[in-house]
Amino acid sequence: MDYINYSVEKLEKFCNTAFQKFGFNENEAKQITDVLLLADLYGIESHGTQRLVRYHKAIEKGSVKPNAKPEIVFETPVSAVIDGHDGMGQLISVFATELAIEKALKSGIAFVTVRNSNHFGIAGYYTKMACDRGFIGISSTNSESIMVHTNSKEAILGSNPLAFAMPAEPYPFWFDAATTVVPRGKLEVYNKRSKPLASGWATDETGKVCTDAEHVLDCINAHGEGGGILPVGGISEETGGHKGYGYSMISEIFSAILSGGATSNHHVRAVGKGAGSCHSFIVIDPKIFGDPDEIKRRLSVFLKELRDAKRADENIQIYTHGEKERISYEKRMKEGINVNISTVAEMKSICDYLGLDSVEFLGEVDTAGAKTSTYDKAYK
Amino acid sequence: MDYINYSVEKLEKFCNTAFQKFGFNENEAKQITDVLLLADLYGIESHGTQRLVRYHKAIEKGSVKPNAKPEIVFETPVSAVIDGHDGMGQLISVFATELAIEKALKSGIAFVTVRNSNHFGIAGYYTKMACDRGFIGISSTNSESIMVHTNSKEAILGSNPLAFAMPAEPYPFWFDAATTVVPRGKLEVYNKRSKPLASGWATDETGKVCTDAEHVLDCINAHGEGGGILPVGGISEETGGHKGYGYSMISEIFSAILSGGATSNHHVRAVGKGAGSCHSFIVIDPKIFGDPDEIKRRLSVFLKELRDAKRADENIQIYTHGEKERISYEKRMKEGINVNISTVAEMKSICDYLGLDSVEFLGEVDTAGAKTSTYDKAYK
Repeated sequence: MDYINYSVEKLEKFCNTAFQKFGFNENEAKQITDVLLLADLYGIESHGTQRLVRYHKAIEKGSVKPNAKPEIVFETPVSAVIDGHDGMGQLISVFATELAIEKALKSGIAFVTVRNSNHFGIAGYYTKMACDRGFIGISSTNSESIMVHTNSKEAILGSNPLAFAMPAEPYPFWFDAATTVVPRGKLEVYNKRSKPLASGWATDETGKVCTDAEHVLDCINAHGEGGGILPVGGISEETGGHKGYGYSMISEIFSAILSGGATSNHHVRAVGKGAGSCHSFIVIDPKIFGDPDEIKRRLSVFLKELRDAKRADENIQIYTHGEKERISYEKRMKEGINVNISTVAEMKSICDYLGLDSVEFLGEVDTAGAKTSTYDKAYK
Repeated sequence: MDYINYSVEKLEKFCNTAFQKFGFNENEAKQITDVLLLADLYGIESHGTQRLVRYHKAIEKGSVKPNAKPEIVFETPVSAVIDGHDGMGQLISVFATELAIEKALKSGIAFVTVRNSNHFGIAGYYTKMACDRGFIGISSTNSESIMVHTNSKEAILGSNPLAFAMPAEPYPFWFDAATTVVPRGKLEVYNKRSKPLASGWATDETGKVCTDAEHVLDCINAHGEGGGILPVGGISEETGGHKGYGYSMISEIFSAILSGGATSNHHVRAVGKGAGSCHSFIVIDPKIFGDPDEIKRRLSVFLKELRDAKRADENIQIYTHGEKERISYEKRMKEGINVNISTVAEMKSICDYLGLDSVEFLGEVDTAGAKTSTYDKAYK
């Protein structure tokens, strides 16, 4: 088996220690770890510990600056624009979400945008922050250019997720998805597993469908030579590819155009330079539409109706968004998290880089079959 | 050929006259006509004159009440909930959008929801209203249940479009799309053309893919027996069907859950009863993020970059959203609008119903090959 099981506590201890060694204070390290491990706990392997190598490289190459502090550069009672000054995306985004919540408490609705940030983890972490406080949360981010939009072979847009969360019983509605068919992280996971991509996920530098994960990742890392991931809806308008392209545009506009930051195609992957990631965070107090308890009750009823609908296949359950994640969360809190050996190998090299004892943090593990991360090739 | 060409003036005259005969005043008839013809001018055949039969039947059956006036039932400086009292969707929605613009002028952002309305035409008409005034416009609506969500064979959600518009040069960014792979209107158009649906658009009452447009429309009209249109992303999670399902949820929450109205699965198609449609309208003043001219310039630059990207096929142009619609608009304003003969037959029966001289309004036309509208079967 290519996975090693770690308890949540074990991973927490490793991440907290590593991020402090990287230059963050105790509270900051805890915050970053929390975002990262929520992804693994929710079963979103693409955005959990497998992303540690990305942060490692970004800090090592001077792209993420551990001492940077976010700054509010423009503000109204319902909005703000924040300059992240190339800090860690998670810390800037928690700051931005707290600000949006504070403004929504007073104004009922708030829209905060961020520029000059870095990768922020799962978009849904920040909508969860709002949702946990009884609000509707909406968040988005752009990324390095990765999406080949309809009729293009050149990636201009990012994976550009949109996330949305709203309180409900017994689970909140929690939706978080890249506007590409799949996120880049999924290609990384397939590459680590040496598994071919599904047809209709990605194209190569000629604009043709490509199922070789490593080749597509190379195309993405080469920037501008062509090749990337298709929008949700696929390669043609017949199957709605222009719709995924449209949702990606909304994410890009919210994040980059409204923050004055870099659009995905102007993100930077260079030593000493911040990536230029942009995000957006919208917080809405349901009480601007009436009784919030009644609104929550109505959503809960509707979610149950969706789950109880007639099944296409009697043996396949119907889910509402966020349900699988909550089931995964409960299971993994008890049973631990399976980490791919390639990811474990990356964690070992983080130990080497930071002078940590890998046996103490990760145990005696054999990572002989591990694949080398594509992030080694990402920086110019 | 199965199409008859009419000038915009000719169609305007017919629609204005018909809607006044249906019981609307001159200004209201003009408003409804404007929404309807913008769809045809933009090349969105599914939502233009081919939808007249739907409004005809809805008024005839007492579902749309021409004398109803929208009422604000809840309000804050940044929001409102409107009860449409079963009026014509277009009139209620213009009222709601005007209200949202008025609030956004003062507060910077406004979110207005609507319940107890009827079909409102293209969602993008209302975002265009906001965009024409320099704002970002976002709108959504639910509909009768039509979408078979992931793993379900029963339609619970509606076609649930999300529309988004924002000022840019030389064209605004104007995105308007059902969160289903295709809207119901597209099935109506294929049915009128006796053309098979693309595989992956719809399923039948057994939950299997179905390419027979008439059969799927029958399934939809039967309500609750199974069958409907798939979410953008298709039938499986592998191709992102759960994402289209998620976007549809956002539209449903914005429209129905936040207005206190009927979710799509509780819409009514019964003589004497309003459909229960719900909508949402968000208006954002870009100046809450800085200089609106600079924001517009930035979006314009980015849209150009997208259009100028390397093409997958050198002979196939890359578009940004709203560009095709503007090209179509200019062409059709000059050359007129091609109307399917089945739609012309429906317009003739509207003349008969209202006591209008069809030859005067539509000319001497042979509609022998016309298909009968599925709307005759829609009311119980």
